[in-house]
Amino acid sequence: MYKIGILGYGNLGKGVEAAVAKAPDMELVAVYTRRDPAGLAIRSANVPVRPASALEDGEELDVLILCGGSATDLPEMTPKYARLYSVVDSFDTHARIPEHFANVDAAAKAGKNAALISCGWDPGMFSLSRLYAEAILPGASTYTFWGRGVSQGHSDAIRRIEGVLDARQYTIPVPEALERVRAGENPELTTREKHTRECFVVAAEGADKARIEAEIVNMPNYFADYDTTVHFISMEEMRRDHSGLPHGGSVISAGATGTDGKKHVIEYSLKLDSNPEFTGSVLTAFARAIAKRAANSVSGAFTVFDIAPAELVPMSGEELRAHYL
Amino acid sequence: MYKIGILGYGNLGKGVEAAVAKAPDMELVAVYTRRDPAGLAIRSANVPVRPASALEDGEELDVLILCGGSATDLPEMTPKYARLYSVVDSFDTHARIPEHFANVDAAAKAGKNAALISCGWDPGMFSLSRLYAEAILPGASTYTFWGRGVSQGHSDAIRRIEGVLDARQYTIPVPEALERVRAGENPELTTREKHTRECFVVAAEGADKARIEAEIVNMPNYFADYDTTVHFISMEEMRRDHSGLPHGGSVISAGATGTDGKKHVIEYSLKLDSNPEFTGSVLTAFARAIAKRAANSVSGAFTVFDIAPAELVPMSGEELRAHYL
Repeated sequence: MYKIGILGYGNLGKGVEAAVAKAPDMELVAVYTRRDPAGLAIRSANVPVRPASALEDGEELDVLILCGGSATDLPEMTPKYARLYSVVDSFDTHARIPEHFANVDAAAKAGKNAALISCGWDPGMFSLSRLYAEAILPGASTYTFWGRGVSQGHSDAIRRIEGVLDARQYTIPVPEALERVRAGENPELTTREKHTRECFVVAAEGADKARIEAEIVNMPNYFADYDTTVHFISMEEMRRDHSGLPHGGSVISAGATGTDGKKHVIEYSLKLDSNPEFTGSVLTAFARAIAKRAANSVSGAFTVFDIAPAELVPMSGEELRAHYL
Repeated sequence: MYKIGILGYGNLGKGVEAAVAKAPDMELVAVYTRRDPAGLAIRSANVPVRPASALEDGEELDVLILCGGSATDLPEMTPKYARLYSVVDSFDTHARIPEHFANVDAAAKAGKNAALISCGWDPGMFSLSRLYAEAILPGASTYTFWGRGVSQGHSDAIRRIEGVLDARQYTIPVPEALERVRAGENPELTTREKHTRECFVVAAEGADKARIEAEIVNMPNYFADYDTTVHFISMEEMRRDHSGLPHGGSVISAGATGTDGKKHVIEYSLKLDSNPEFTGSVLTAFARAIAKRAANSVSGAFTVFDIAPAELVPMSGEELRAHYL
């Protein structure tokens, strides 16, 4: 049994907890938190909640799964803990991945641990789909569509507007764009042509809704480049209709072969009831691969590209060939 | 540059030839044939056609890609040549994979070569999709649909009927079945409920079409378990409308996470203008991985499950992390 620790008990930490509970070869040893452990009730019976500081005293873990945020937590957290444990994270700030990889690689090698960064579905499973497509059809045009699903970063951005009590933002692929890409047309698409954004907002009593709407649709980086619709709803409607965190999307690659340009379209798509539970499930599968590598004294940083699919499952080569090939 | 040889110059061999021509790190050294080399014109200028027997004298190859059939060629061919070269094949008789793997593994180890069996899209890319889904969502229900596309085995079976001059058989997924699976319903589906079969047949003048149709739709294993439609067409229509070898299909996996059973649907789908050119492209990508392993003195038999995605492309880890993650 691989001994697993979880650091951070937000939505993602809970998703990992649920996935580890289903793994026949893993045992959740503890959830670690930077908050007061006494104030944190977790779902798993008989699993202790311990302070993050305990991790510095050498806990008995095969893999520590880091469930912090990419903006400020993981850039510090992953190198720090990769010196002490084999780790998995979901770092998703694309532009900073090379730097993060280098930091984690150095720390993991120094600590003789194995580390996997940028795991989940994008980056993660979508990255795999982009790479497999490029391997098979070199020079293929690859498009990534997200949604229909809740973007937590965009929902948070709306919540910071004055007079907003709560908000939920859905990212939605434009159906015509999806169709053209699926047909192998390789269209040039602007940001606006690929996705629309739909916002559900609970405004404070007496707040100026016209101003809130204008602030949303004109917000640079987040909304200004998109066609955005805003719906004002009651807090009751928010709780009733928008409490989930569904998400998904598609990676579509179109490429040609031969001298007469035969066309091929590859699509990988996800339709997820719970973004954090699915992401947690991906992290858990890759934690198994990292546990195996660590057990074989392999050290350093890796990404999903470096892991053979057989490493992800608790099955022998014979079983895999007989049942999945 | 990896030195590649192709054994067998049917549709698949031509597909591999086209893919190798696009690979910046590969060079096609020769096409080997069991026929008379003098009678075989290949598309690549300046590439020699050599007799298969030349392979026994130690050709200078990094990988030999075996483009024979699974029924009788590959069970003998792959172990035989795995003693002499690193090889890749597309063996697709699912029930005999364990035995084939064992034979090839022993031969490759004896010859200190690397060998990859059962590569292509099914088995191959579809197998990967089944395994990744099981890794993320243990116990997921996975369905494989084939088509719309030409089944060469079924087309051949019709051609063997008396009075048939030519035939083309399309395998077609049943739309309602696809929809139910995509909706995550996990339906129980019989063979008949998953696919239909559509046949285009050129009959000899004066042949008894009613008898031909009856022989087709009642043919055991091939058609009896399906709803099959038969269209009689002219040889001219056959050449005009059915000269391609399109294919494709979908692997759809539905699984649940958490205590309240949040549902997730993963779909990997292919829409291929040319089955052999796409299959040849997959074999070529995996040949690169086998060439790298052989260069690192790794020997034995492998499947697509054992290959990390990064091994499939002529790019560094830095490039991959920067552009595909």
